Amino acid sequence: MKKHKIHSPVFITIFGASGDLTRRKLIPALYNLFIEHQLPVIFEIYCVDFMATELAAFKKNLLDGVNEFSRTGVAEITLWNEFSSKLFYLQGDFLEGSTFSKLREHADNYDIQNQRRGIRMFYFATAPRFIETIADGLYKNKICMRPLLDRIVIEKPFGTNLETAKKLNIFLAKRFYEKQIYRIDHYLGKETVQNIMAFRFANYVFEPLWNNKYIDHVQISVGEQVGVGKRGGYYDGSGALRDMIQNHLLQLLCIVAMDAPSAYKAELIRDAKTKVLKNIRVLGEKDVFKSVVRGQYTAGAINGKPSPGYRQEEQVAPGSTTETFVAAKFFVDNKRWRDVPFILTTGKSLPKQVSVIVIQFKDSPNKIFKTDVVPNRLVISIQPELEISLLFESKVPGLEMKLQAVDMDFTYQEAYSESLPEAYEALLLDVLEGDPTLFMRADQVEEAWKVVMPILNAWSKYPKKKLHFYKAGTWGPSEALALIKPYANKWFQLPRYERLVEKS
Amino acid sequence: MKKHKIHSPVFITIFGASGDLTRRKLIPALYNLFIEHQLPVIFEIYCVDFMATELAAFKKNLLDGVNEFSRTGVAEITLWNEFSSKLFYLQGDFLEGSTFSKLREHADNYDIQNQRRGIRMFYFATAPRFIETIADGLYKNKICMRPLLDRIVIEKPFGTNLETAKKLNIFLAKRFYEKQIYRIDHYLGKETVQNIMAFRFANYVFEPLWNNKYIDHVQISVGEQVGVGKRGGYYDGSGALRDMIQNHLLQLLCIVAMDAPSAYKAELIRDAKTKVLKNIRVLGEKDVFKSVVRGQYTAGAINGKPSPGYRQEEQVAPGSTTETFVAAKFFVDNKRWRDVPFILTTGKSLPKQVSVIVIQFKDSPNKIFKTDVVPNRLVISIQPELEISLLFESKVPGLEMKLQAVDMDFTYQEAYSESLPEAYEALLLDVLEGDPTLFMRADQVEEAWKVVMPILNAWSKYPKKKLHFYKAGTWGPSEALALIKPYANKWFQLPRYERLVEKS
Repeated sequence: MKKHKIHSPVFITIFGASGDLTRRKLIPALYNLFIEHQLPVIFEIYCVDFMATELAAFKKNLLDGVNEFSRTGVAEITLWNEFSSKLFYLQGDFLEGSTFSKLREHADNYDIQNQRRGIRMFYFATAPRFIETIADGLYKNKICMRPLLDRIVIEKPFGTNLETAKKLNIFLAKRFYEKQIYRIDHYLGKETVQNIMAFRFANYVFEPLWNNKYIDHVQISVGEQVGVGKRGGYYDGSGALRDMIQNHLLQLLCIVAMDAPSAYKAELIRDAKTKVLKNIRVLGEKDVFKSVVRGQYTAGAINGKPSPGYRQEEQVAPGSTTETFVAAKFFVDNKRWRDVPFILTTGKSLPKQVSVIVIQFKDSPNKIFKTDVVPNRLVISIQPELEISLLFESKVPGLEMKLQAVDMDFTYQEAYSESLPEAYEALLLDVLEGDPTLFMRADQVEEAWKVVMPILNAWSKYPKKKLHFYKAGTWGPSEALALIKPYANKWFQLPRYERLVEKS
Repeated sequence: MKKHKIHSPVFITIFGASGDLTRRKLIPALYNLFIEHQLPVIFEIYCVDFMATELAAFKKNLLDGVNEFSRTGVAEITLWNEFSSKLFYLQGDFLEGSTFSKLREHADNYDIQNQRRGIRMFYFATAPRFIETIADGLYKNKICMRPLLDRIVIEKPFGTNLETAKKLNIFLAKRFYEKQIYRIDHYLGKETVQNIMAFRFANYVFEPLWNNKYIDHVQISVGEQVGVGKRGGYYDGSGALRDMIQNHLLQLLCIVAMDAPSAYKAELIRDAKTKVLKNIRVLGEKDVFKSVVRGQYTAGAINGKPSPGYRQEEQVAPGSTTETFVAAKFFVDNKRWRDVPFILTTGKSLPKQVSVIVIQFKDSPNKIFKTDVVPNRLVISIQPELEISLLFESKVPGLEMKLQAVDMDFTYQEAYSESLPEAYEALLLDVLEGDPTLFMRADQVEEAWKVVMPILNAWSKYPKKKLHFYKAGTWGPSEALALIKPYANKWFQLPRYERLVEKS
């Protein structure tokens, strides 16, 4: 479990180095790894993109990005100077062979200079349409050949449906070993998400309750306050199901529902997760319109500020039927989870950003108290709060035996004073260390597509059927409430402070 | 469950009204019930004792007591004046019939004045040797006759062994109905103790874990910082086993170990508790010296202040072998608890006051993490902190999968801003309302004596055998540690802030 510092030299290539992901996430994460001595002494970050830019201007832009988006910012400019001396920029078209021959030359020279061959990581921070091109460029130029040293990192979306995902897997499998391919889902790098496995499997008291005898239903909710913003072009061809459910939310479901692996080993853990996806009940066309609610936001207001409707967003088709909200009820048809609904909800332009997993326990069969009893509820808050809390019934202090639901909680904020590593820090380090535990294996991605395909198919067959609209700044269409109503009073698990209000 | 205000007039008699209990506990509790409108509009407190005193001086002394010991003090003197106008003092010897005829006259006049017969409560706040005398006086003078209206309250110690307890029960049973007899154990009125039943039976998630499959052992510890002080005369003939284990600690054990009653009804709850006592494995003479550790404090220092040894205390015999410390390991021989040790510990002149119940869960059979895992622990703190916390393993934030035991907690201090009712408030109100749930039934007291008799007998047979000494201001004799060592690292559960130190 204990990670070791990497001793080999590391050569990192970022394709799409002028993009938002590089500036907001990758460079800030690499910078933080650097200042925390997690990167080896010898490393280089080779940035590739189409745009012409001066190296100095390019670095300045990344420095601004670190100051704006990293959890620490640049406290000491000498550290940044040291870090940025390892940054290089190659202006190159991914479609041209010369880009890759230059890359190869540079990478080979780097090895010669270091007198040994180190680890190579190639990060695809590009639009998905470049994946094959870049992969092929690496392959043809023999840049990413060594199964134990060279790795590629691919962002979601991985394919746009089961067929394209399969094709992409096959395409990559012809050029790389599976163990070289890191399909990243940054949700899995979040501290609270990583903690779920520790919570479930390092404690004896939760696993006995973790089944359909005690659990009534599970809610997994990832709400975004932002709309599509400038991503309308991509988003309008994708939608919330592809953008969020197929990856983040189904992955969270896997971590909640998986059986204990026999050891904390990447392949055992990925096997256990894949098994969950295989066990998810396949929806028929009719089920889709019963068990899945889609919505699209219209003009409204978020935090008092006017917010446009989805169809008015840049690069979105005026009559678009793309969903910006999904609430889907799934069942995992195995012994442990039979008849326990997993309700996955996600949406854009909601009142606030919130990611939370709620394990709702059943009502106690012990009915010795005459008052109503609120069933227990375990709440794992991923963001903005990081906390785990257990709602339980307690006697209200006072002269009567009166009960009240209260929270037993553990909050990261109280327990830890330091800022927590960003998901990308954890995941990039995992790639450099060759630990694929938190990354998607080919079969995981395909199984996740299998789960959502019936929904995609039904919606594409009936593009306007039961497409519900909700005002920006509300918690989604009221139809989603109907979906969860048999199981809970509120489909959406509000963050802590609102839950407190809700209870009182 | 919802309690109703009492509408009948209430006539309260306190025998031993000049004593400490009256001043520190009973009057402050009654005053708080009064200001919180829990007492009926018509009530009177008739104080009886041997001492001659002016009523004004007597009241002044009680007012000082309220200000010193009540959780609120007297905020408004007009309220105190109203309350104290209901206070009366009768100078009387419990051994003389005239005391009871005066009491009867007063009580009867009170009824006439109110034009109806109200509730009568007779509180025995006296030395135990007066119980029979007073009970007989009440009986002979027909003062406490009506089974539904008249009640007596008897403090511990209830008997000095099984035989005397039985005799006392028989003596009382000839004079009163069992339902009129309230054997008080103020520990059962404490908020956190009352909450244990709510916690166990109003929540679905704890009961499935509440058995020998998941629980390794239970620690019930009540430590006192004070020595015997001025109570040496009583204490030297009693000792920690009689003074604490036979009542408070065994009662806590019952609440932890009892099966769920089918309803929250006094007799069902008392049946369930009695069943636990009956199931406690009877110790043989040899077991006593193996499973029970006794100690006596010697001179030392508490909080830096010199503190005398027990044998140097007032009214203690110079060569006394009375124990001031007990650690006893019991087993409850039923299906649920087979092989789960309950370790009860109590002592005087310890470093601090602390009452805590620890449910120590077993180590998880899941061994997927390579690091050592701390087994779960549920800690119910009764005092000085009031809190419930669950120790669980969590991932340490950071780039490695490293585990650490952390607390999920619920503290009364954070949850409730108001001061909590004192145990005596809850219990006195229960008596007035005729709710015996939290009081000892005759058979409960006898069963508790049965549990401790083999220990008393063995110790009285071998008064010096394995009597261990510990310095005042330490956590008791080291032999107690050996008793718990097979089950836990620390026999004594330290309060919260020390636990945190212990973990780090």
